[in-house]
Amino acid sequence: MNFPWPEPGTPLDQIATPMPVIDEGRLSANIARVQAYCDSHGKNFRPHIKTHKIAAIARQQLEAGAVGLNCQKVTEAEVFADAGFDDILITYNILGAAKLARLKDLNGRVRKLAVVADSEMAVAGLAATFDTDRPMTVLVECDTGAKRCGVQTPQAAVWLAEKILAAPGLRFGGIMTYPSIGGAAEVEAFMVRTMALLAEKGIECPVRSSGGSPDLFAAHLVPSATEHRAGTYVYNDRSLVRAGHCTTDDLAMHVLATVVSRPAPDRAVLDCGSKALTSDLLGFSDHGEIEGFAGARIVSLSEEHAVVDLGGCTVPFAEIGAMVRVVPNHTCVVSNLFDRMVFHRDGIVTRVENVDARGTVW
Amino acid sequence: MNFPWPEPGTPLDQIATPMPVIDEGRLSANIARVQAYCDSHGKNFRPHIKTHKIAAIARQQLEAGAVGLNCQKVTEAEVFADAGFDDILITYNILGAAKLARLKDLNGRVRKLAVVADSEMAVAGLAATFDTDRPMTVLVECDTGAKRCGVQTPQAAVWLAEKILAAPGLRFGGIMTYPSIGGAAEVEAFMVRTMALLAEKGIECPVRSSGGSPDLFAAHLVPSATEHRAGTYVYNDRSLVRAGHCTTDDLAMHVLATVVSRPAPDRAVLDCGSKALTSDLLGFSDHGEIEGFAGARIVSLSEEHAVVDLGGCTVPFAEIGAMVRVVPNHTCVVSNLFDRMVFHRDGIVTRVENVDARGTVW
Repeated sequence: MNFPWPEPGTPLDQIATPMPVIDEGRLSANIARVQAYCDSHGKNFRPHIKTHKIAAIARQQLEAGAVGLNCQKVTEAEVFADAGFDDILITYNILGAAKLARLKDLNGRVRKLAVVADSEMAVAGLAATFDTDRPMTVLVECDTGAKRCGVQTPQAAVWLAEKILAAPGLRFGGIMTYPSIGGAAEVEAFMVRTMALLAEKGIECPVRSSGGSPDLFAAHLVPSATEHRAGTYVYNDRSLVRAGHCTTDDLAMHVLATVVSRPAPDRAVLDCGSKALTSDLLGFSDHGEIEGFAGARIVSLSEEHAVVDLGGCTVPFAEIGAMVRVVPNHTCVVSNLFDRMVFHRDGIVTRVENVDARGTVW
Repeated sequence: MNFPWPEPGTPLDQIATPMPVIDEGRLSANIARVQAYCDSHGKNFRPHIKTHKIAAIARQQLEAGAVGLNCQKVTEAEVFADAGFDDILITYNILGAAKLARLKDLNGRVRKLAVVADSEMAVAGLAATFDTDRPMTVLVECDTGAKRCGVQTPQAAVWLAEKILAAPGLRFGGIMTYPSIGGAAEVEAFMVRTMALLAEKGIECPVRSSGGSPDLFAAHLVPSATEHRAGTYVYNDRSLVRAGHCTTDDLAMHVLATVVSRPAPDRAVLDCGSKALTSDLLGFSDHGEIEGFAGARIVSLSEEHAVVDLGGCTVPFAEIGAMVRVVPNHTCVVSNLFDRMVFHRDGIVTRVENVDARGTVW
């Protein structure tokens, strides 16, 4: 298929919609700002590739000073290993013979690979897979309040660390958490207690990894953490403006859309449906913000349509055929919908990158 | 990337998760049942490819008796034209020089192509693109209550039909609507009135196209409609069980997932996040139904995690490493997330098809 991906030099107002576009200047500034913050607080920074899934952006992040990458799945890590990245942390329980075999293969060709586990079952699978020839580093995932994965207590973390230490093919790498928003104090308390319990047993805990974009600039409130992981900060989105992480001037991704219908005075329809924005609400009651049209609300999405309620719109809305810019609620999920991503500087296309790890769900 | 797509003959319990799988028997039965219903009521049936995006399934639908295909975007129609389909209705306003040029090219190589319009602006673009050498058939899209696109009144439909008729390169093909659920009476009334107004002016209205899966078996309550379009019926989903369109025995798609964590007694985590299920709620308060575990609720999704609240689960939940089957809220959006789709009969993989039109957003 000959999709209408634009050539460098194309003005954005001439490209086919719906299309997410990335502002080069804001992208670079987001990378630099977060790296400088982490540097100033002596934290290692490990960007999560889930937001962009693009090797070229990961290179920009490493050139700025990131220590390595964070992936969520083995297949994602494979893509970045193939692109030459040699320090990857997979923050996911890897289960089952097929995935463990691929993880072992990956460990044979990546300089520094690590994975997490939060259960005896997960550790047992890793223990049966790896050997002393090429051991695997395993961090214990801890639930510090986000109520997703992770051991529930520092005692449980130590118990699992000892299981890892007992396996000849595994190395205990430390602890990792994906905290709840506003959870810095809980993370610090969990880490301090776990480190103390480990120290009582003479166990070193070299890496203490926390993460998340919404609270990124509170990472210094977790002094025990040696590294911070974050993904969304690279593009930012509506949810991160709401969280106070950034301003609208830091939004690097917009979804360009066209008004395809103005069926009624209080209604417009855009061509950015759930196949462009996804239906991630992230706590909002509408599906993104249309720049320049305060009060216009994207009240529903179907695959190819975004229905806009103009009832509260304070200015005359764009006419049929006009292009608008939508700030997505959540940028990571938008990346997963497009095979390629268009970049621009001041509205002129600079490059089109393959979304290298799109579709890697395993 | 060497993704773990399974070979035919592989038992489903040996494939990598998360993975949507299609039950061949249920797929065939869904196609046959709906075609038989439409045949028995003298309706042409035009399946919407958005749900499967797979040429091989479209062939099954045509072999069963469908008159042609329904696509939503030019690029989708291109994929199916390339696969040899020669009767395609694009139910979308096509705007802008680039898309109109591609639509013109498509019209030159598809035996029977039609498109819709709901505004003078959309008709003007079409009128400026097509000529008498190879005219384009245009249907007027009507809003019969769904409040998405479409002219608001029969009078407006006639007014727009006259604009179409006034353009040398366009042919007026009839009227089309995507109705609201339970809206059969409104559709019929709109069609009857529009046909009467057209008849007063001596204008024929050959095609009256209604659509939707939730009300598919009420299509006979719209006697004025000559054809019905539907997509989701082919796989069905949780929303169509709720709508009464089908039973759980007719669900052809399940998303296979693995329990990756049991961090707390009241919580499990599956590996089917929003990258597998999407976050389409379709009015539900949770993200799909886990077969065999009544009361277990998928309360939140992140990209790679589904968090399951076990508080109300009436049976012991699956342990870490076990595979479960999730009924998605909405199947169409799941198809758009996977490059290939796995089919099975009685739990044994039969084929793996490319999702030919995945990612076609233009």
